Amino acid sequence: MRTAICERLGVEFPLFAFSHCRDVVAAVTNAGGFGVLGAVAYSPERLDAELTWIDERVGGRPYGVDVLVPGRIDASALDLRAHLLDFVPDRHRDFVTHLLAKYGVNAPPQPLTAVADEFGRRVTGPGATALIDVALQHPIGLIASALGPPPPEMVAEAREAGVPVAALVGTVEHARRQVAAGADIVVAQGTEAGGHTGEISTMVLVPQVVDAVAPVPVLAAGGIASGRQMAAAMALGAEGVWCGSVWLTTEEAETSPALRRKLLAASSLDTVRSRSRTGKPARQLRSAWTEEWDSGQESPGPLGMPLQLLLAEGAMARIGVAADRGDAGALELVSYYVGQVVGQLDRVRPARDVVYEMISEFAAAVERLNGLTSS
Amino acid sequence: MRTAICERLGVEFPLFAFSHCRDVVAAVTNAGGFGVLGAVAYSPERLDAELTWIDERVGGRPYGVDVLVPGRIDASALDLRAHLLDFVPDRHRDFVTHLLAKYGVNAPPQPLTAVADEFGRRVTGPGATALIDVALQHPIGLIASALGPPPPEMVAEAREAGVPVAALVGTVEHARRQVAAGADIVVAQGTEAGGHTGEISTMVLVPQVVDAVAPVPVLAAGGIASGRQMAAAMALGAEGVWCGSVWLTTEEAETSPALRRKLLAASSLDTVRSRSRTGKPARQLRSAWTEEWDSGQESPGPLGMPLQLLLAEGAMARIGVAADRGDAGALELVSYYVGQVVGQLDRVRPARDVVYEMISEFAAAVERLNGLTSS
Repeated sequence: MRTAICERLGVEFPLFAFSHCRDVVAAVTNAGGFGVLGAVAYSPERLDAELTWIDERVGGRPYGVDVLVPGRIDASALDLRAHLLDFVPDRHRDFVTHLLAKYGVNAPPQPLTAVADEFGRRVTGPGATALIDVALQHPIGLIASALGPPPPEMVAEAREAGVPVAALVGTVEHARRQVAAGADIVVAQGTEAGGHTGEISTMVLVPQVVDAVAPVPVLAAGGIASGRQMAAAMALGAEGVWCGSVWLTTEEAETSPALRRKLLAASSLDTVRSRSRTGKPARQLRSAWTEEWDSGQESPGPLGMPLQLLLAEGAMARIGVAADRGDAGALELVSYYVGQVVGQLDRVRPARDVVYEMISEFAAAVERLNGLTSS
Repeated sequence: MRTAICERLGVEFPLFAFSHCRDVVAAVTNAGGFGVLGAVAYSPERLDAELTWIDERVGGRPYGVDVLVPGRIDASALDLRAHLLDFVPDRHRDFVTHLLAKYGVNAPPQPLTAVADEFGRRVTGPGATALIDVALQHPIGLIASALGPPPPEMVAEAREAGVPVAALVGTVEHARRQVAAGADIVVAQGTEAGGHTGEISTMVLVPQVVDAVAPVPVLAAGGIASGRQMAAAMALGAEGVWCGSVWLTTEEAETSPALRRKLLAASSLDTVRSRSRTGKPARQLRSAWTEEWDSGQESPGPLGMPLQLLLAEGAMARIGVAADRGDAGALELVSYYVGQVVGQLDRVRPARDVVYEMISEFAAAVERLNGLTSS
């Protein structure tokens, strides 16, 4: 395909695949798309290893990294790491204990996932810089920042390395701010997307962002998991699409068996935008976890980010273990970030096949539009 | 354009314009689209007069009527009419009195709008049948039911008259139910739409509904007010689009001056899905009215439909009068049903020009898609 994005990034088909799984990233890139590794939970050493693994498999084809660095790098947070969990109020700690007991989750506390371990490190100057440094030592074609405007340090380093910076936005206002902060590509993400998301739908948001930041290229995110949806996004003026949810049920994804079954069975009504997982509104599978936090009688209400994230990750690690051994209560609680397209995901496919089907359905959708208008 | 809908309904450009204003309906139909008169607030006599007015102006070009009849016609509701307002609890009546005082609305009580007057009549068998009878005595090309499956009486009468029945849905489940109840055309309406709306976005909903009810044709609604958005909807598999919000700021619309200014100034973040206007979740302009009902300390919470509708209409009639004479408090309260596309509406245009611009932008969007894919 020929869009400005395709030429600038050397990608054949402007389908960007956001995934925490290196196998998905490599598979999509090798199929003609553009894999983007979500490095939120990685240490610099781990990130280096993952990117080396990808480099060895994609033969120079383009891929990128999403680092979720905070917009402002706070040097005073250096000593925060060890004490972050101490800031969680007893009420909230007790509510989680109560929830786990109520749903019979008796898996032992798991080593807190890398998220908790890394979060403190990354809000510090050296931590964030280390991640960006590692990413830029690899032949990446894009570096993305999922929360807030990219920090000036990141923009400066990426510029020097000749790597374009992408930034996710949910409003026109944020799009303008991101471009002013140096973003080379804007990802306009509608409310139907999984993860942290705003209120405006993709159909409404994308054309407004395209017009507001032109000639900066825009990728559309949210509600896109098929070739028809990709064609729709491009009709709105996007130069490509950014998909996350659709990869969760691919063969390559490291999705746990219990969660995968839940995703395959879910309808588009089964997601909710809730603060219960991270402290900020994030769309995820509706579950006993989101229901208890958001409408339970005894809920103390979610904390802010990052405390709610740490609390939730610790509990979710235990819930995941119990769910995978089939405990009924844990299966009710288990959840993950996913968009409304979850209702379309009904079978496990290789990531490569998802790309190929999108390419073919995209072509059919454009052809159908032509048939409607040709006289 | 050539879609099954175009051929069946004899329309050139499958842009359906839902409006309560006969001038908009006639203008869109005369410009090559398909006007649909929202007859929610009309008596049979008034509806007859409005349709006669339209007939005299469209020269046989196609238009339709939306009657918002209840799915089940309740004969026992015959004596409800006189007493409906008596069912409003004192707490809710007092809260409205308090709101009007707090915002300094001192316009006198207005004659309760036709909505209140007609609602009781229409939930009765004779009332609903009378409206449908009147509509079918005119050369209408479509009869639509906006809430729930069309009642069997309506389907039978429309069938006999050879008039297709359209029904609005917000989920795949409802789409299947509507088709089973006899709908000939399904309008799949995303959460970004104005008025009564569900939770699933247009981008996600439309392809699922198209696949679920094929070969029944689907129109897309929600988030569509431009040719790019129309092209996107058609790429998703829709055979046409159903738009409401975009007509509110046209020259022909009977939108009050105060409301029109608010609509023109609003961004896409300025709508909210709230029960405060009708008792069911309906997207509308966020205002002091929605805020006070939904999050005010003293709010008793909205009633159900139809009691909240009656209460709100009575208050809104007074608020409208005060807002149009410029009272600051009334301007804060005033609101109306509108979708997230309100952020795109920034000038007053003739309805005809809206249609022409959509036709031309639609063609440009299809051409752009072709340019991307042709090698």
